[in-house]
Amino acid sequence: MEHGRDSRRQSVDGPTEKCGVVGIALADRPVARPLYYSLYALQHRGQESAGIVTHDGFQQHSHVDMGLVGDVFDESDLNTLNGTNGIGHVRYPTEGSINSCCAQPFSVSFKSGSLGLSHNGNLVNADELRDELAGLGHAFTSDGDTEVIAHDIARNLLEDDLTDAVKRTMERIHGSYSLTIMHDDAVIGVRDPEGNRPLCIGEVEDGYVLASESAAIDTLDGELVRDVRPGELVVLNKDGSGYESHQLVEKENTAHCFFEHVYFARPDSVIDESLVYDVRRKLGEKLWEESGIETDVVLPVPDSGRAFASGYADAAGDTTADGEPRPEDDDGVEFAEGLMKNRYVGRTFIMPTQDERERAVRLKLNPIKSTIEGKTVTIIDDSIVRGTTSNQLVELLKDAGAEEVHMRVGSPQILAPCYMGINMATREELIASDKSVDEIRQEIGADSLSYLSIDAIAQSLDSEKIDLCLGCVTGEYPYDIDGETTDREVSRPVVSEPGPFAADD
Amino acid sequence: MEHGRDSRRQSVDGPTEKCGVVGIALADRPVARPLYYSLYALQHRGQESAGIVTHDGFQQHSHVDMGLVGDVFDESDLNTLNGTNGIGHVRYPTEGSINSCCAQPFSVSFKSGSLGLSHNGNLVNADELRDELAGLGHAFTSDGDTEVIAHDIARNLLEDDLTDAVKRTMERIHGSYSLTIMHDDAVIGVRDPEGNRPLCIGEVEDGYVLASESAAIDTLDGELVRDVRPGELVVLNKDGSGYESHQLVEKENTAHCFFEHVYFARPDSVIDESLVYDVRRKLGEKLWEESGIETDVVLPVPDSGRAFASGYADAAGDTTADGEPRPEDDDGVEFAEGLMKNRYVGRTFIMPTQDERERAVRLKLNPIKSTIEGKTVTIIDDSIVRGTTSNQLVELLKDAGAEEVHMRVGSPQILAPCYMGINMATREELIASDKSVDEIRQEIGADSLSYLSIDAIAQSLDSEKIDLCLGCVTGEYPYDIDGETTDREVSRPVVSEPGPFAADD
Amino acid sequence: MEHGRDSRRQSVDGPTEKCGVVGIALADRPVARPLYYSLYALQHRGQESAGIVTHDGFQQHSHVDMGLVGDVFDESDLNTLNGTNGIGHVRYPTEGSINSCCAQPFSVSFKSGSLGLSHNGNLVNADELRDELAGLGHAFTSDGDTEVIAHDIARNLLEDDLTDAVKRTMERIHGSYSLTIMHDDAVIGVRDPEGNRPLCIGEVEDGYVLASESAAIDTLDGELVRDVRPGELVVLNKDGSGYESHQLVEKENTAHCFFEHVYFARPDSVIDESLVYDVRRKLGEKLWEESGIETDVVLPVPDSGRAFASGYADAAGDTTADGEPRPEDDDGVEFAEGLMKNRYVGRTFIMPTQDERERAVRLKLNPIKSTIEGKTVTIIDDSIVRGTTSNQLVELLKDAGAEEVHMRVGSPQILAPCYMGINMATREELIASDKSVDEIRQEIGADSLSYLSIDAIAQSLDSEKIDLCLGCVTGEYPYDIDGETTDREVSRPVVSEPGPFAADD
Amino acid sequence: MEHGRDSRRQSVDGPTEKCGVVGIALADRPVARPLYYSLYALQHRGQESAGIVTHDGFQQHSHVDMGLVGDVFDESDLNTLNGTNGIGHVRYPTEGSINSCCAQPFSVSFKSGSLGLSHNGNLVNADELRDELAGLGHAFTSDGDTEVIAHDIARNLLEDDLTDAVKRTMERIHGSYSLTIMHDDAVIGVRDPEGNRPLCIGEVEDGYVLASESAAIDTLDGELVRDVRPGELVVLNKDGSGYESHQLVEKENTAHCFFEHVYFARPDSVIDESLVYDVRRKLGEKLWEESGIETDVVLPVPDSGRAFASGYADAAGDTTADGEPRPEDDDGVEFAEGLMKNRYVGRTFIMPTQDERERAVRLKLNPIKSTIEGKTVTIIDDSIVRGTTSNQLVELLKDAGAEEVHMRVGSPQILAPCYMGINMATREELIASDKSVDEIRQEIGADSLSYLSIDAIAQSLDSEKIDLCLGCVTGEYPYDIDGETTDREVSRPVVSEPGPFAADD
Repeated sequence: MEHGRDSRRQSVDGPTEKCGVVGIALADRPVARPLYYSLYALQHRGQESAGIVTHDGFQQHSHVDMGLVGDVFDESDLNTLNGTNGIGHVRYPTEGSINSCCAQPFSVSFKSGSLGLSHNGNLVNADELRDELAGLGHAFTSDGDTEVIAHDIARNLLEDDLTDAVKRTMERIHGSYSLTIMHDDAVIGVRDPEGNRPLCIGEVEDGYVLASESAAIDTLDGELVRDVRPGELVVLNKDGSGYESHQLVEKENTAHCFFEHVYFARPDSVIDESLVYDVRRKLGEKLWEESGIETDVVLPVPDSGRAFASGYADAAGDTTADGEPRPEDDDGVEFAEGLMKNRYVGRTFIMPTQDERERAVRLKLNPIKSTIEGKTVTIIDDSIVRGTTSNQLVELLKDAGAEEVHMRVGSPQILAPCYMGINMATREELIASDKSVDEIRQEIGADSLSYLSIDAIAQSLDSEKIDLCLGCVTGEYPYDIDGETTDREVSRPVVSEPGPFAADD
Repeated sequence: MEHGRDSRRQSVDGPTEKCGVVGIALADRPVARPLYYSLYALQHRGQESAGIVTHDGFQQHSHVDMGLVGDVFDESDLNTLNGTNGIGHVRYPTEGSINSCCAQPFSVSFKSGSLGLSHNGNLVNADELRDELAGLGHAFTSDGDTEVIAHDIARNLLEDDLTDAVKRTMERIHGSYSLTIMHDDAVIGVRDPEGNRPLCIGEVEDGYVLASESAAIDTLDGELVRDVRPGELVVLNKDGSGYESHQLVEKENTAHCFFEHVYFARPDSVIDESLVYDVRRKLGEKLWEESGIETDVVLPVPDSGRAFASGYADAAGDTTADGEPRPEDDDGVEFAEGLMKNRYVGRTFIMPTQDERERAVRLKLNPIKSTIEGKTVTIIDDSIVRGTTSNQLVELLKDAGAEEVHMRVGSPQILAPCYMGINMATREELIASDKSVDEIRQEIGADSLSYLSIDAIAQSLDSEKIDLCLGCVTGEYPYDIDGETTDREVSRPVVSEPGPFAADD
Repeated sequence: MEHGRDSRRQSVDGPTEKCGVVGIALADRPVARPLYYSLYALQHRGQESAGIVTHDGFQQHSHVDMGLVGDVFDESDLNTLNGTNGIGHVRYPTEGSINSCCAQPFSVSFKSGSLGLSHNGNLVNADELRDELAGLGHAFTSDGDTEVIAHDIARNLLEDDLTDAVKRTMERIHGSYSLTIMHDDAVIGVRDPEGNRPLCIGEVEDGYVLASESAAIDTLDGELVRDVRPGELVVLNKDGSGYESHQLVEKENTAHCFFEHVYFARPDSVIDESLVYDVRRKLGEKLWEESGIETDVVLPVPDSGRAFASGYADAAGDTTADGEPRPEDDDGVEFAEGLMKNRYVGRTFIMPTQDERERAVRLKLNPIKSTIEGKTVTIIDDSIVRGTTSNQLVELLKDAGAEEVHMRVGSPQILAPCYMGINMATREELIASDKSVDEIRQEIGADSLSYLSIDAIAQSLDSEKIDLCLGCVTGEYPYDIDGETTDREVSRPVVSEPGPFAADD
Repeated sequence: MEHGRDSRRQSVDGPTEKCGVVGIALADRPVARPLYYSLYALQHRGQESAGIVTHDGFQQHSHVDMGLVGDVFDESDLNTLNGTNGIGHVRYPTEGSINSCCAQPFSVSFKSGSLGLSHNGNLVNADELRDELAGLGHAFTSDGDTEVIAHDIARNLLEDDLTDAVKRTMERIHGSYSLTIMHDDAVIGVRDPEGNRPLCIGEVEDGYVLASESAAIDTLDGELVRDVRPGELVVLNKDGSGYESHQLVEKENTAHCFFEHVYFARPDSVIDESLVYDVRRKLGEKLWEESGIETDVVLPVPDSGRAFASGYADAAGDTTADGEPRPEDDDGVEFAEGLMKNRYVGRTFIMPTQDERERAVRLKLNPIKSTIEGKTVTIIDDSIVRGTTSNQLVELLKDAGAEEVHMRVGSPQILAPCYMGINMATREELIASDKSVDEIRQEIGADSLSYLSIDAIAQSLDSEKIDLCLGCVTGEYPYDIDGETTDREVSRPVVSEPGPFAADD
């Protein structure tokens, strides 16, 4: 599946992650550079904008702009982001228009101090909350969720202490959210009660880190401590000496997003106690077990299919497609690189005209003929969204001389949209929303096609299905969403609690 | 004298004003556009950066950038500057490096709310204050005065109310300052105890305005109420219904900058109760009385000399150069436009090479030969700083066929630098710092040269000399400046009062 | 009348000039800087784009971009524009869309060398020519006139020498054009057979100059030699030693644009042997003679009305409004500056909302009350196009306390559009297209209103009416324009001569 | 080895390729888009600037700018690049300063038409040629080689036909060059007599293509025809119907750059008849044969080491490190992905401070602990230049728990600089220039280190050593370079032939 950098100007056949968040509290060292490096480590989670907010004990400093981390910050920007405590953000547009008004961290300076807020996720009831707050006189500069959360917490802070203020807001908002927050000079992390989006705690030599993925902690030469728990509020000590935990909300079941492991997260990150790389290899092994086929060669779709293909090929070394132990003199299925990816096809690519289109996939992926010609080929991808790239891939391989092309997919059919913060596609665009596997196979032109089962996903994640968000592959969601069904007992909070600002203030 | 837009890239022969400030509180109407138009009206006071800070009752909004008002703001910027109360700023670099870090209003979000601050003027003791505050843990992002004032007020606000907080800061800072301040949603104006820089109050249909010059009030179709008094704090009512006055500090004498009337301010502004245009005409009349000379034609140096020349020529219609009543059949001295100014020679002009230099003045000012050829000419300028432009002008007129060129200057010799917020020149660069009038005349090549007397300045301003800042023309200053003498009894405040933040906080 | 810098983003009440052209050939000195300074001197003729093309004997160099001269070129650009011969251009959009494709000089590199072309004017038959050339295989990158002229000359050059090539093109094109052309390293000037747009020849120490206005020659410390004659081709010697003249086309009558003298050209330029400043003063004198009125004060609309007002006031010193000699003890009408112009209201100004609009004129022009209050006032403008600014001005003066406001206009009623290269307005927008003088007076709210007569224009320019283009004030044009009448015997050339490129090449 | 995008702002441990060139002639279709896609395919050869020059039969069109292909061109740029024939270029700075003056294609418009030129390579005698041409009056706008070649060919074209003109220039220039040239509307390809840089011919449906690498031809859905021969001039037919070949210069031996196969070229390109991917796998196999070591796991340095490591691991499946056939029940060495590459660490990355430096490598490469911990590890890289990255890598793996770290390198020691167009490093910076393999091993901290032999390179390329340029690994060059020794009989041409422009022209 193509990664998302190019998502807006071309029609890509892949979902795009929404955001990455980070928060750091250090003893004495300026926090700006560690935040900068962390955001680099999380850049794959959002390439549209980047930002850092710090506080030096007296005042807040902020630098947020559109662009990649490397373009947004220069040396002098980092030098003015004073202070040992701060938060950061990289973003993809979720709700809210695609422009600088929505770049984060969102910062607000209000009567009892300042607030900075970084958000990964998506609220289901943001509109009601915004309307209510607007009715009380709040002016919004964007139509994003984040500003709503920030205003709500800020309002609560006018009369509550921090823990109560966040708790009251958590009782009013519904949806997925991993937040890092800067209240004056305090850094806080919050994960939604279902733990939909990842958030973890790490320790560095002179402080503590909150980050969407543990790879950010590695980058700082730190150690992963643990995941933030669903419904937990973590407050980092200002002097970097530790952190306090408050379990503000508790639910019976979690709703971890399995797609983080399948596609979004870095292979070297540990999320909810599983190393993503290992999960992907395990999914590849299951894929062989469930639907392995003996072909001359197995090719990953680079880069996202590589770990799946490697697990698949390894499993094929042990057992045959029939599940029998592989004989000693049979090397199994050869794993090879047969598709060369052009890493420069990027954001500002001018699309080919209609009749050039089929040639255009070769701009991104060029087959290495010697690997393919005259062979039966299995290609392994992590998922299929719209199906257009898969179709082009199959054609490409056949043009390069493949005798047969079999496709194996490391996740179940995606048949419903994501409301939890991922820019996947509309239901109409999803090829699996109204087609059987065989119809999809025909449409993409493969000789055979198999998806992984939902059970294999749960097993590979060492999880119960009820503890995962499987909305996009089942059509049943762990939240109460207008027009969709839910897979558990949930209801939206009623948002009409009178706030500290009366309308007549 | 050339105006300052082009000051940094060329060596201009003219001082540059430092800044313009504005603050507005309206009943219901968004304040962003009125602030924007006010800044346009004050653009002549600073073309390097522009900014607006507003507050909507809940949070502060800010937009500040390098460039002219028209370049800094677009429609959508104004739309996000929510609120009915706000302040604005246009700026020239004073102290502090020439970059975006110093653009204003400076805004700081601290524990008891937010502060926005616009400053016109220059502190004499900013370094001591900065050092003291830095010792208490304050991190500064610039080396400008404004940030020092902002931090000091913010510190005081942690324990004092607004009036006391400003008063304590006024007792600690020494120098010239006209400030507009936004504390949360309150708009405040402060003028230094000597009233060095201008600041006035105006009334519009639905609110009140504080501005460096009354022309900003005219632009909003408002009426000038009065000047802010030296040492006065003015707090605009948040609902635009009026204002409160607090006379925080009182001194026996003022130190109004006479150069505002001579050069900086717009002719259509009223400053300290005098219309600038009228003062300039009066100075022109005095110039005729003191040193008029009968020539065929009187030419203003456009645009700054025009009002002086018009007053000079009018006075010449009534009396001869000898002070006798002019006979009925003698029309006096003809006033004419003889120099065409190129309004496009601007900021990014590439300087001619050395041997092209003398030709280059014609880029800016081209003589209209029919007005000059074969005539005796008087040229009227408002002031002479370095003398280089005057020299080129005289040569230009002689090349165009002037028989004689006499220069008359509407202010006394500038012989010492300004420390009060004007970017004039160093003492070494000032042609009058070590030359007699006749030596200057020789250097600029004029057939005669006369300056206006200091007494004429005081008379035209209806003021006592002791109530003016005459530092640049006398070398004696109304403040206590290292290495300079003072013209009155003043001393710098000792800045070591313990603040609410102890160093060990 | 407001000048044009702000023409596109606001609805201005003034025409905008189309372009300025220049060409220079020097003996040894690099030509880039003299071209740069010349363009500065012509900046008032076009602020949308600027460009220079030079040739160093071996190859052509070009730098053309959107923006003001000072923004388009930096030192290193000038340093790469090698060669002693070159041409330049500043531009306003005429025909062709407003973008960089149409910035000039237009340069084309074709089989028999290179061509650079700068154009001021507007062709009437460009579309036919473009269609014909396109039919022969020419690819156009813009829809501007200039590219059509360049392609046509280039085609002719494949078989003719330069003089014949230009002559053949002149026989095919119809309309107004002053051109400077660079053919390889030769600089050429061409003026259309009616001499509609200005073009003159100047001599500098080490070479010769062609320029739209003589002020550009002054800037280079050169001397005006003479105007280029209508229908003349001037070829500058490559070594700067002189020039050759070829009278390629001759017509009985010229069609000089009188509006150059009234509004566009700089006061210090000499066009068709008249100094613009003197013409404007003469027009002001005629205005007094034709419709003078005795009021307390006469105010120019700055800056364009100043020379008119000065001539008007001077004439009023000699005779009364009744044409009688003025008595000795009557000083006549006082000339004063009563309107302060804000020079910063520029290109990117955000328009006031509808209800702020009437206040907005004060952003541009603020009255100086002491000059106006309680007085009868005459305001002098050079022309009225749409009438909206005039209306606002009258209101402004009345608000400032004027007892009566009389308006005198230094040109006849503009009642028809310009097709000759000026961006005036559509016929519907012209207030005089369907209103009598008294109706206009009522609409603008003046106590009286008078325009200057057409005869006065011809007299002040020492010209016959038949030698002027008076299309905008008579509705009869000196060219054959679809849907309009002509004031003389003209017809469009038929453009179907077979060129050297047959369609089947 | 790290790829070059980030080469200038960080100290990278890798050489950077200089340029990619392309030329296309089509029957009827506009050539701009095919050029654009070709440049995308060659983007890895240069990310500093990009450009396209086309000719529509009448005139030349050009668009060249700093930046990546995707940033340099937008839809409207492509639409104005008219014509069916054109050339393109992507570039890294070689000689000549790093700025836009040196972006290519270089285009020159001179008296007998226009020339566009794209160059990959580096001349050894450019300075002499430039001096000679400057003496004849040529003005250069850059200090790059390309302009020298362009001027020399253009001079020759004033009297010779194209073939002779190029031949005369080839006899005067000395060094490496693959050129695509546009002379008026003819597209030409030239490869230096030693064939140092690659250049190949491809056929598409409606035309012919010249390109640095065959991957560009694949992108256009074309077929590789053959490599351009050393010393050959290829002229594409203007109508896309074929091409003419002229063998202008012949030498006994070639000097192909072996580093194209080792590092620069895309794996999916065929260069001098070898598929790069296959060569790299073969080099990996040789590496196992020459210095294989039995460890738990083999890791590629991504991405450049991947094909080497795959060949290495495959060879290890057949034979043991001792060269014995591997027993059936021994799976050999496990190939795994153990290092996660961050693809976003790019051009504008802010370097860590000194004490953060060792942590910083983790920004680029993060180990996947489960693959490494407690294991003996072999890492495979393509080459070692400075050695700093290798050192960091070894440390990284040991920190991640590797028991032993052995390094195997797919090329010989780089001990001398490249003068043929690659930005490698100075001799002083090359770790192998003055250190033995064991000293290098100690410096990088590996448990063992082996390089590949020079013989293995020649064998894998099916070539004789004398037909390769081995300068960087032997210190003996196939050209006559000041201060270096040569490995064959060569001498520089004397450049003093009188050209068609005498100095007194």
